[in-house]
Amino acid sequence: MSFTATPQVMSFNEPLLLSSGQTLDQYQLAYETYGVLNDRKDNAVLICHALNASHHVAGIYKNQGTETLGWWDNMIGPNKPVDTNKFFVIGINNLGSCFGSTGPMDINPKTKKNWGAEFPVLTVEDWVRSQERLVSALGIKSLQAVMGGSLGGMQALSWSLVFPDKVNHSVVIASAPNLNAENIAFNEVARRAIVNDPDFHGGNFYEHNVIPKRGLKIARMVGHITYLSDDVMNSKFGRSLKNEEIKYSTQDVEFQIESYLRYQGEKFSEYFDANTYLLITRALDYFDPAKDSGNNLTKAFEKSRADFLVISFKTDWRFSPARSREIVRALIDNKRCVSYAEIDAPHGHDAFLLEDERYMALVRSYFDGISKKINSVEKV
Amino acid sequence: MSFTATPQVMSFNEPLLLSSGQTLDQYQLAYETYGVLNDRKDNAVLICHALNASHHVAGIYKNQGTETLGWWDNMIGPNKPVDTNKFFVIGINNLGSCFGSTGPMDINPKTKKNWGAEFPVLTVEDWVRSQERLVSALGIKSLQAVMGGSLGGMQALSWSLVFPDKVNHSVVIASAPNLNAENIAFNEVARRAIVNDPDFHGGNFYEHNVIPKRGLKIARMVGHITYLSDDVMNSKFGRSLKNEEIKYSTQDVEFQIESYLRYQGEKFSEYFDANTYLLITRALDYFDPAKDSGNNLTKAFEKSRADFLVISFKTDWRFSPARSREIVRALIDNKRCVSYAEIDAPHGHDAFLLEDERYMALVRSYFDGISKKINSVEKV
Repeated sequence: MSFTATPQVMSFNEPLLLSSGQTLDQYQLAYETYGVLNDRKDNAVLICHALNASHHVAGIYKNQGTETLGWWDNMIGPNKPVDTNKFFVIGINNLGSCFGSTGPMDINPKTKKNWGAEFPVLTVEDWVRSQERLVSALGIKSLQAVMGGSLGGMQALSWSLVFPDKVNHSVVIASAPNLNAENIAFNEVARRAIVNDPDFHGGNFYEHNVIPKRGLKIARMVGHITYLSDDVMNSKFGRSLKNEEIKYSTQDVEFQIESYLRYQGEKFSEYFDANTYLLITRALDYFDPAKDSGNNLTKAFEKSRADFLVISFKTDWRFSPARSREIVRALIDNKRCVSYAEIDAPHGHDAFLLEDERYMALVRSYFDGISKKINSVEKV
Repeated sequence: MSFTATPQVMSFNEPLLLSSGQTLDQYQLAYETYGVLNDRKDNAVLICHALNASHHVAGIYKNQGTETLGWWDNMIGPNKPVDTNKFFVIGINNLGSCFGSTGPMDINPKTKKNWGAEFPVLTVEDWVRSQERLVSALGIKSLQAVMGGSLGGMQALSWSLVFPDKVNHSVVIASAPNLNAENIAFNEVARRAIVNDPDFHGGNFYEHNVIPKRGLKIARMVGHITYLSDDVMNSKFGRSLKNEEIKYSTQDVEFQIESYLRYQGEKFSEYFDANTYLLITRALDYFDPAKDSGNNLTKAFEKSRADFLVISFKTDWRFSPARSREIVRALIDNKRCVSYAEIDAPHGHDAFLLEDERYMALVRSYFDGISKKINSVEKV
């Protein structure tokens, strides 16, 4: 049984200059906080989310009899690896998302219509800059840690480069220093499926009172395959049939795995915004901190000041351990203090969200260490 | 410069009982032959095709100034690894395909309308049985070899089980004893993309004079990703941009890999039949020779009599070498004569279609051996 979480919203009226050169004149960010900010304001931890998650990181929403658990509730909370008895944890929803922060579903104040496809294209760095304003507004000068998995890990990395003096620890889980060609390719399939859905209407489907569900379903199905390892798919579904006998049909479900993927696609298409999906996958594609350093990641990390914890999972083929090791190597080249663990979990990319004793113990121990450092500072 | 190939068609009026229990009363098969059938009729080699290929295996079609080279022309022809100076090679188009053999585009004699989604669902075994009739009609009692890559390799395997006394050598390249959950998952994404395209009209799009191009494009893009290795994608495309600068667009092409995939999808959607795509991917899903032997592949191969050459490619993640080794193990358990090679080619699943010196030399040497056996029989 977890605690009750309360979503909040913060508005910003100072224009935000984006990587694209465009400006967002005003925006709001949805967020949640857990635990108490100490007097020195040096126990804050920011959690960044991945593709389809939100600021609802931990705790429970109670709404009309249903309960929604935060997406990283196993990791964050009282006495959990990131212990909210010790840390003040901030969950934040990214700009452009569809869960409370300003995004394509919202009304563009200039046109009085939904932003739709006109919403500015964003980068990971844009997210980090928008997040920094919220962190500052909470009175926090420096984050004790920024932590995330997958795309969230990219934000944790980016924080250490965009605001090197404002983050003490960067925790980068199941992530990569950029997408490779195959990663981009899967994103592109998902985007094409959405854009080519006749119900997408060039991104202005809101006016037509339709949702490009077909495209969203395909996008999610493709994505989901890349989240799971081959092994876990085989052990969970294998070639199990949905019915006792083969039906000899190309359109009906024959195998369990088909049923599972269709269900995941269906569910996703009911709550996720199509334009947000395009924006977020594009931010993933663009992320490449080494680009402005002649593709030299070591050079890119010269400006980082944080300590790092980097974690990868052996069966993750979306962002393989080799990609995490690239990050670790660049950090070591820069004599940064970096801990690295490669966890032999069977679940593929999804492992970063799942219970695994070694993984949880590792994060717990790392944050215990941070907590001890904070306390020793307080005693001085 | 290759020789000119001539497509032929053979019609069958004896009903074909299918695995599903349905019957196909009449059908035709498109095929090509290269080389000369010897007097003993014991130098025949059947080539089975994979997903999107056809009976046009080798040689050139000349048509209004354009030349179309057979899909395995590097492998088959005079003085090539499968030497048509020695062997009589048959290329055959599978039932249900869209290149000349009876398929969903054709008119159902009972309804006088296109078969469309009503075309019977087929299995690899159905293909093998339909092919055997053509081989028999050519006067061939026993094939010296059946050879194929990917789905073609499954047919080569199946021949050795359905007609154990009619195939002397089975050459199984870049194949698997069945699809795993991930393979089925990718097929399902492709099928859903096609079926959900509003232009699919439940499979009866012919009457509406439209083609579900959007779905076919997505299907091909997904497929294409699985044909290539991560390595080859990174070396060929990496993160190269299409234009000099990022355009900050979610819908335009930014990366070379996107441009390549869109092109592949576009091209495919112009020539491939959507119902055929559904049928062929389903035949792939269903293929599972061990199923009727309690999922025991060794038991399944008890009835095989052929010698085997099994080849896999190290970077093939669609049908990994581990899957080929399952086949090899089952054959060895049965004391079959089996040669196995795992080729360290960088190209992923596509490697079976590409030039690789070691691969070509291996097939050449295997077929030279077969040719010597034939000659020694002739001399006796």
